[in-house]
Order: sequence, then structure tokens, then C-alpha cells
Amino acid sequence: MLHVPSFVAGRWVDPDADARPIEDAVTGQVFARAGAALDAAEMLDHARDVGGPALRAMTFHDRARMLKALALHLRDHRPALYELSYHTGATLADHRIDVDGGIGTMLVIASKGRREMPDAQVYVDGAVEQLSRDGTFLGRHVCTPLHGVAVHINAFNFPVWGMLEKLAPTLLAGMPAIVKPATATCYVTETCVRIMLDSGLLPDGALQLVAGGLGDMLDRLGAQDAVAFTGSAATALKLRANPNLMRHSVRFTAEQDSLNASILGTDATEGSAEFDLFVAEAHREMTAKAGQKCTATRRLIVPEAMLDPVARALSERLAATTIGDPRDKATGMGALVSNAQKRDVLDKVATLSREATRVWGDPEVRFGEGAFLQPILMRCDDPDAAARLHDTEAFGPVSTLMPCRDMEHAAELANRGEGSLVASVFTRNGALARRLTLASAAFHGRLYFNNRDSAAEATGHGAPMPHMVHGGPGRAGGGEELGGIRGVLHYMQRTAIQGSPDILAAITGRHTKGATVAPSKTHPFRDTFDDLTVGQSLTTEAREITLADIEHFADFTGDTFYAHMDQDAAARNPFFPGRVAHGYLILSFAAGLFVSPEEGPVLANTGLDALRFLAPVSPGDAIRVRLTVKHKTPRTDEYGEIRWDVRVTNQHDEAVAEYDLLTMVARG
Amino acid sequence: MLHVPSFVAGRWVDPDADARPIEDAVTGQVFARAGAALDAAEMLDHARDVGGPALRAMTFHDRARMLKALALHLRDHRPALYELSYHTGATLADHRIDVDGGIGTMLVIASKGRREMPDAQVYVDGAVEQLSRDGTFLGRHVCTPLHGVAVHINAFNFPVWGMLEKLAPTLLAGMPAIVKPATATCYVTETCVRIMLDSGLLPDGALQLVAGGLGDMLDRLGAQDAVAFTGSAATALKLRANPNLMRHSVRFTAEQDSLNASILGTDATEGSAEFDLFVAEAHREMTAKAGQKCTATRRLIVPEAMLDPVARALSERLAATTIGDPRDKATGMGALVSNAQKRDVLDKVATLSREATRVWGDPEVRFGEGAFLQPILMRCDDPDAAARLHDTEAFGPVSTLMPCRDMEHAAELANRGEGSLVASVFTRNGALARRLTLASAAFHGRLYFNNRDSAAEATGHGAPMPHMVHGGPGRAGGGEELGGIRGVLHYMQRTAIQGSPDILAAITGRHTKGATVAPSKTHPFRDTFDDLTVGQSLTTEAREITLADIEHFADFTGDTFYAHMDQDAAARNPFFPGRVAHGYLILSFAAGLFVSPEEGPVLANTGLDALRFLAPVSPGDAIRVRLTVKHKTPRTDEYGEIRWDVRVTNQHDEAVAEYDLLTMVARG
Repeated sequence: MLHVPSFVAGRWVDPDADARPIEDAVTGQVFARAGAALDAAEMLDHARDVGGPALRAMTFHDRARMLKALALHLRDHRPALYELSYHTGATLADHRIDVDGGIGTMLVIASKGRREMPDAQVYVDGAVEQLSRDGTFLGRHVCTPLHGVAVHINAFNFPVWGMLEKLAPTLLAGMPAIVKPATATCYVTETCVRIMLDSGLLPDGALQLVAGGLGDMLDRLGAQDAVAFTGSAATALKLRANPNLMRHSVRFTAEQDSLNASILGTDATEGSAEFDLFVAEAHREMTAKAGQKCTATRRLIVPEAMLDPVARALSERLAATTIGDPRDKATGMGALVSNAQKRDVLDKVATLSREATRVWGDPEVRFGEGAFLQPILMRCDDPDAAARLHDTEAFGPVSTLMPCRDMEHAAELANRGEGSLVASVFTRNGALARRLTLASAAFHGRLYFNNRDSAAEATGHGAPMPHMVHGGPGRAGGGEELGGIRGVLHYMQRTAIQGSPDILAAITGRHTKGATVAPSKTHPFRDTFDDLTVGQSLTTEAREITLADIEHFADFTGDTFYAHMDQDAAARNPFFPGRVAHGYLILSFAAGLFVSPEEGPVLANTGLDALRFLAPVSPGDAIRVRLTVKHKTPRTDEYGEIRWDVRVTNQHDEAVAEYDLLTMVARG
Repeated sequence: MLHVPSFVAGRWVDPDADARPIEDAVTGQVFARAGAALDAAEMLDHARDVGGPALRAMTFHDRARMLKALALHLRDHRPALYELSYHTGATLADHRIDVDGGIGTMLVIASKGRREMPDAQVYVDGAVEQLSRDGTFLGRHVCTPLHGVAVHINAFNFPVWGMLEKLAPTLLAGMPAIVKPATATCYVTETCVRIMLDSGLLPDGALQLVAGGLGDMLDRLGAQDAVAFTGSAATALKLRANPNLMRHSVRFTAEQDSLNASILGTDATEGSAEFDLFVAEAHREMTAKAGQKCTATRRLIVPEAMLDPVARALSERLAATTIGDPRDKATGMGALVSNAQKRDVLDKVATLSREATRVWGDPEVRFGEGAFLQPILMRCDDPDAAARLHDTEAFGPVSTLMPCRDMEHAAELANRGEGSLVASVFTRNGALARRLTLASAAFHGRLYFNNRDSAAEATGHGAPMPHMVHGGPGRAGGGEELGGIRGVLHYMQRTAIQGSPDILAAITGRHTKGATVAPSKTHPFRDTFDDLTVGQSLTTEAREITLADIEHFADFTGDTFYAHMDQDAAARNPFFPGRVAHGYLILSFAAGLFVSPEEGPVLANTGLDALRFLAPVSPGDAIRVRLTVKHKTPRTDEYGEIRWDVRVTNQHDEAVAEYDLLTMVARG
């Protein structure tokens, strides 16, 4: 008998007398127990007073490095997680979705943290807003971590991925988490949490675990806390309506029921690559994790003429699927998580049966005492008249096939789910994809298109990717998770900052237009990455651009565009007074003015952003350049990226070009 | 007697027998009535079936142009709105905040719609996500308008701005609105709605008005609808808890009570510019709109030594404020909206009085029968021990002064509001601003910094700007409005799109890396803006870059950086095999390869985005360029912006540089 403990304020707490029994999905026997009366206030205090400050003291890059190390540590301990996961009824292929998928998600979030967030404690969101004519008062948005604790309430189906996909963004944001897995599979989560805690990589208080019930924890949350829930719509509604959460506007993200649809495009004929992909993905969605995925396809929408061919092809695949012991390599589909879950699925099948007929699968077939169930394919010939079909989620290997008259009708049927996590479309027709997007994107959190061009690399209808938002409107809960850095922002407060350029520069750690610059004592190309400071600035000498320069540049580069070469044509142009210098000539001369040629810490010009030519440069004009350190981002132990603010002005001190220059610079 | 009608499914509906009386704030007499039993289902159907499709058929630019025209039309009709607004107790200066502020907000949203959104029906959110190794399967996020209706429930204090700041983003998103102003001032909103409807600029069904109660409208909303509320926390809680809204995860944005704080920095000595600004803004927040602003300062936090000086200076200013008839030009502060509101404020003052003493203002002073009230300045010397001070919003000309020991203590006190719309800080010390941001940004929707550098152009503690998010966590409701395009996205669904590059290009209307290109029949510089098509592409001849080219370019431009000139130093560099071509040389030669020199529709190279140098170019390498139309944005009737995808490759077909090139091109 496995006694699954909780992790409370730094210590493990064993189940108590009121613990709940947990069934082995394969044998149907109780093999574990979990649950204890925990001190919710103590857990919250520990997270808020110990975990939060420790995490907030780190930078985004610190936390991203921690996540990467955690993920690599978990990767080394996968066999233990696989072994335990067999008790949930899942096959090795299913474990890979859960365990490897969770670790992969953590790695992507870590990588995005390093690449897309600063090595700082303040995340800048969006551009500077010009709130005043002369630019002495500006606006910008920043995001900072909430000062409370994130409570994660997860579903039984992905005990590892479900935790990590919430935990990684939370920790990257700088917020501690209390994780509450579903009791049915909490023994897998507990092991995963233990592996992470044992790694010594997490600061004290950053992660706690509730195996069993939450007690009165939700009644103790405040405005700086957040709740993220995955599970049934009924439970979500109960939690969401908690008066304390509502009174304090506690952030509540839900990912709940979803009648996900899959649509076969009208361009896909029987036997076409798209037809075959549709059938193959439908089969995978029905059988992977025994259909216990919130993203699994519940409704298969196909053009009328394809109804019989799809029914045949899919039934054939289902017939060829071996159901049984998940440890057996020949097994294609394991068990549901419990016999209670199986009963629930069969209840829902009974509901669907009022509107649909069974095409394949026999609910009566038994495979021992475990929670095994044959996949069940239903069919409804009049989906417009149906209601339960569009609102009943049988959370198991069950899908219903239905015909559509055309793609508008398909969108209409898909939208009858009133909000889903994902809809997929198998088509190679771009115009059709666009029409379907306009007709139904508002009803789905994700639209997944697949065809012969993307088949080899497509990630699957059912797989939420860490780069893309996961969630959906309406019935799906109205929430969003993941989506790269978007998912991190759920655990941060966006704050509008208004003030002078100097104040904004101090807060954001980046030079802001109009802020004071500090003339560089030496040429800034002589300073190392670590020595350079934001606002450090060089102003060059002036250089006149002559007509001969323009003609020579045109001749040398081959760029004889009329605005540079033909006085009359240039003067007819609405932007130019007459012949003007090439933009690239201005850039090249600017570099000639600011570069320090000798070997030194500046390693390479790696790019340029947001270049705008603001005023024409005519022959006889003289340009000079101001080069200012705008922002610093360490990239490796050897070098970092310096983003320079470059401002090119003419002899009247008017800006003629502005851009961000990117260089790699060796560290101190 | 004014009978304020509603606008229902295209017709005006007069108040019925159950209409509620409305008081003139200045005379205390009933002068208007509003309210009728409306058919909520009819209104919703009209919005969903008539208004929504009409708006969705337009592009973002179409809607932005419509908003601009509406705003200019309203601007011409300001006198009528001013005249009515006197009944609310407001002065001309107050009307300008409401009426001109609302029109200005609409203009900014319209302008951002043109500049920051595409002339299309799909808004692209964020970058392409590389979901596969070879790039045949990609991800991107798009936003499309919700298919339902936005119900706006507004507060009494800003009958025009309050409506327009919600309406402008809603219409720009492509969603119809039903506007329900607070009954107390609905006669001003009704006139504003009538002016807009009479302009003929709005499609049928885009805007309806409820003067009076909403009836059962909220019970009829679904997942594609949205509710945006501004008002009291108590009402917000009641609406938020509506079972129908919760069951369908209907988007609910609330902007409610807020104990906004203003902090005087420890660097500001008595008589300093920052001290004076603090006092001036505190006075303005207490008296503008008679303190009836959700953003008004309720708590004034100053270093202990400044407590008496601030109390003196602020009392002096309050004493000099004339209270009385808002039509009188000498009046500095008008009336509260009603005697009921005045009673509510005095109740709250009584609550505050348990923890604070009165420094200035006498609640007993009367000015006729109207809802006039002297501004009341309270003082609490032990704010740590206080509780009501940090949770009681007296929605009138009332603020409480309190001391802090240091800036950490100030942040702690500000955060005791448990979520506010705005906190302001008067300091010139950047490090102090940064520390306060880290300590308290998570508790406030906006942090407003002001000092001598920004004073002349600062927009004021209490003024929400359309560019910046407006809203706040916790007690402030947990919502967000405005913030430029962010505010528009509240009325759209973000959907993750996954598919092949061609599918993504078709949906987003922009060329996507890996998508099929169409070789241009003529040189694309010969085609007008209107004739160019996304994906149209030119591949140039190759050009070898010789060592002589590099040396000549260095000599001509002055860019003699060692990576180009010194074989040994370049080889020591981690990025280069030896001497390499200048990045600017590559750009310049690329232009020489792709430019078509003769006068034609291409008017100017206006800029360049996201340039990355991907591989070094050594002497002897040969580059060629592929130029592809990536995206088109009309700018005026005469020309539009073409964003070109530029890919420079070497003789091994490896990319050496990639960037977006921006040109202005004359229209057909």
C-alpha cells in the first residue's frame, strides 16, 4: 500500500485516517491512499513569506536556468515516473506524452525565458507610449510577479505534464506554487515533486504539494494570489463561485470541458493524403490515454459523401487496436483511470445514444477487473437536430461522426460546442482555411490545420504546445495557459508606468528616448559587456555627404534608384526635395563614424531593429551619430548582447534615421 | 421634465410608468425620468444578427475611420453635451474631462487602429512560432472579434468618457455594444448616443442604449458575449456572481472601488518642485468632479516630517476653492451628483473618522438644496493600526493624509489598499522609483511618477490615458481596459493557429517563412501598391563579394572594424573564420541587386525591421537576394506601405541575412 504524502512548509506529511483510497486502473484493486488535514494557512504563509521573496530576488534568466536544470534533472529520473504511471492504466506511449511532454514544456518555457525576457526583475510589455508633445512625459507597461501564491488544481489525466505546464510559467514569473493533483493519480505527481525537491534546485517555499483535499485554502486567498484549474466544468463552476475568490477578484483560470471537433475539408477526397491524415488523427485522439485528454476529438465532422468512407476506415483502425495490459508492448490502448471513470463514460455514451447510433465498439466487452473499455465510435446523421452531442463530453475513447453540407455548415456545427480548446481541419486549401478561421476562430482556443505539406512534422490535434495558448472560450472555461511568455504573464501584474524618460529608464533598465545620457569616457567599443552601462553614450564628428559620394555609392553597389540619380524624378516624388542619399549610404557612413576599428571586446554586429528613415539627406548635408547603450542581455558566459540606440542627425540637429543596433560583446 | 428614452433594435423607447426619477444635482429637484421594461432578447438578437455581421464585414481600418469620423462629429456637438452636464453638478472644466476626454480617447483608439492594426479582418498577435525542425508546421496567434454582443454597464461620474472609452475599443474590435449608463446621469449619455446615431456613421445594430435597468439581459448572455462594468465593488460582486455568466464563462471586466494612494518621495523637501506638485495634484484630485473619480487620490502618504507642511499647504489650497453653481465661472468645485450620493460620502467620512481626524472641511456647511459638500481632508497619524482607512472609499472630495517612515513603509501602506487603479509618486530619484516599482507595482494598475522634469507635460494622477491600461487588481476589480490595442483585444478571441506555412499565410494575409512564393512576372518595383500581391517574389542574379570590395567599402565609409580588415584578429573572433564583409556592404549590394532604378510606383525606402546577420560572408562568396511581398498596409489614398521579406543567400544557398524592408508605394 502506497501512502502518498503532502509537502507542507518544508516537511512531508503522511496521509491521515481520513485518507481516500486509490485504485490501480489495471487490476481494479486499491493500492494507494492519500489525504490529510493540512494547515492551509501555514502553507500559504510559507509560500508568501519564504518562497515568494526568494523567487522575486532572482532575475528571469536565473529562474529560466533553474527551470532548465530542473527539467534535465527530471529527464534523468523518467524511469521511476514511467513505472508508477502504469498504475494509471497508461501505456509507455502515454507516459511519453505526460512525462516527456511535461519536461519538454518546461524546457521550452526555460528557453523562451532566456531568449524573450530580460536578465532582470521587471518585464517590459510593449513599446514606449508618447503621452506628450515634447516627450518629457512618457508611458510604458511593465510586468512584475504577484506577491502571493499560485494554487494549481490539476486533473487526473496528466499527473506530470498537467503540473509542469502550470509550474514552469509560475516559477519563471517569480511566484511560488502550491500544487494539488487529482487524488486518483496523485502518486505520480508526488514522485515528480519529490524528484524536483530532492534536486536542491528550488528555493525553500517555491513548491508545496497537497495530496488529497485543499481544505479551506481557497477561502484564505487574496488579490495577490492566483488559482489555475483544470478539470470538469461542474467543479470549475463550484470553485469559481467561491465567495472569497470573487470578493477579492482572485485570478481564476479554468480549463474545463470541451467538445473538440475535427473537420474534414471538402477538398479531401477518399484516399487522399488529407483523408488518411484525418482518419489517423481521429484514431489517435480516441485511443491515446484511452481518450482521456481534454483536447481529444469528440466530434468528427465530414462532408456527407465522406461519412461512410470515414466510418469504414476509422472502424478498421479501431478494430486493429489491441486493448489490454499497458505494460505489454503490443498494447495499443490501456485502461481508463478507474472503474468509476469508466462508469461515467458509459453514462455519457448512454446520453449520446439518444441522438446517435453506435458504429464500432462494444461497451459490454470486459478485460479483467481493470477499467478497460473498447473505443466507441458513434454516428449521428442529423447533427443540426442534436443537442446532447454538442454538450456532452464522454471523457474516454468516444467520438461521434456527423455529416456537414459544406464548410460553413461544418463551422456552424463546430461552434455548437459553445467554446472548445481546439478544432482541427484537414485541408490543403488556403482560402477554405481562411474562411473557416473567420467563421469559427472566435469559438476555439486553437485551430489546428494539417495536410500533406505539414504531415511529417505536425504535432497532432491533441497536443498543446508550450509556444501556443492552451485554453478556450465558454464551455472550455474561458481561460488561457501557455502560449510562451503569455503564460508567464498570468502570474504577473501588468502595470502602466508613467513618468519622465529618466524615471522610465531607471525602472525598465533600458535607455528611453529623451533620457539623460552619460558621455562615454573612452570609446564604448573599448568597454566589455560587463563594464558598459545603460545610457553610456558616444557622439561622433560630423561627415558631409556629397553628390559625388551618392554617385560613387550608386556606381559601387549598383543601387541606381531614381531618387538618388535623377533630380527631376526625385523632385516629383512626394517624399524628397530632389536627389537624396541612399538609406544604406547613411547607415554605412554612420558605422564609419562610430566604429572603433581595433580588435576589442565588440565581436560582431548581429543585426538591426526598427530602423526608420525620418528625413531625407540631400547632397551637402552633414550627418553625425549618437550611439547609446540601450539594453544589455547576457547570452553566454563569454559574451552578451548590447542593444545600442543609434540616432543619426543632420547639421540642423534633425533626426534623419533612428535604429537599434545589436552587437555581441565579450564579457569582462 | 426630461423623458430619457432607450434605443432598442433601431427605435427609441420612452420611459414607462415604472421609470425612476432623476435629481438635478444643483437644485436638488427631480427634472428627468428614465426606465422602461425593454425586451432584452430583442436587443441581443438585433446586436448579434444585424450589428455583429455588419461590423465584422469591415476591416480594422474601416472601423478606425468610422471611429475617427464619429469623434469629429461629436466634437462638433460638444455644446449640447456641456449644457446638459451642468445638471450633474459638474463645472465646465469637469465637462472637458468627460466630454473632450471621451472624444480624445476615441481619436487615439482610432489612430492606433490605423497605425497598429492591419487593414484586414484578422489581427496577428506575436511572432511565428517554429513548431518543427524543418519549418513545414508552424504556429501563430490571431485575434478575431467575438460573435456576440458587448454589454457596457457604466458609472454615473463620466456619462460620456465612461461610455466612449469602452465603446471605441469594442467597435474597433468588430463587436456591437449595448450601453447601459447609470440612471443618475443617463440623460447626458442618451444625448451622446443620439448624436452618434444621427450621424449615420454607425451600421444598424452596432449601438443600443438602455436608460434604466437591464432587466434579465445578463441571464441571456453566452460565451460569445462580454460584460464590462464600472461602478461599486458591491454591484460588481452581484453581477459577477450571476449564475448564467459564470456557467458560460462570459467575459466580465470590472473596474470598481479603489483606495488610490499618492506618495511624496523622501527626496522632496518642503517647497521643492516635487512638494508643490504633490500638493497641487492632491488638491486637483480632491476637487475635480467633486472627487467623484475612480482614480481620485484617497490616501496621501508623506514622510513624517512633511505631514504638517503638506497639511498646511493643502488646507490653504482647499480654503481658496470656491464651491457653488457650476455654471458660474468663478466656481472651482461643483456639486456631487445627488443628495443621496452626498449622504453616502458623509457615511464614509463617519467611518474614516474612527481612525482619522478632520484637518479641513466642514460637512455641515450647506450651499442651497443641491448636493454640495466642502472638500474634507482627514489625517491619521498611525496608519499601520488603521483598517477602514485602507478599505473605505468615500466617493467624493475626501482624502486622508498619513505619515510613512521611509519609502518601503510607503509602499506597504499603498499596498494595504489591496489593489488599486493608480498610485502616484512624486520623486526625481530614479533608484527610488525603481525600488517602489518592485515593492508595489503588483498592487496597482498604474504607477504615475511626476517631478520637475515632467511637470509641464504630465497628464495627471487621475487621468486614464487611452494608451495605458486602466484597471487594477483585487479591490479595483481585477480588470483591464484601454492600453491601446490591448483594450481592443478584450473584445476578440485569441486563437492559436497551427499549420503549414501556406495555410498560415492564407489566414494571416502575410507571407510566412517557408510559404510558396509566386515569381513576379515583371519586376515588382514596376507594380503599384494595389497590384502587388502577397507572396509575389523576385530572385536576383548573384554577385561575388571580393576582398577588393571589402577594402574599398572600408576605405569609402571609414568602417575599418578589425573583422573586415585584420585576418588574424578576425580569425580570433568566435563568430568569424577570418576577414568578412561588412553587414552594411551586404545590405548595400543586396539593394543594388534588387532595385529597379527607373522612376515608378516605389516612392521610398522608409525603414527596415528585424535584420539578422545569420552567417559570415567571406571574400569570394557570392550573394543573391529573394525579395517577396510580405504584407500590405494602405496609408493614404495616394500610397501604402509594402513590407518585403528579404532573404540574402550565399552560393551554398545558406541564408546570410534576413530582414523586413519597408517601402512606400504609390497606389493603382
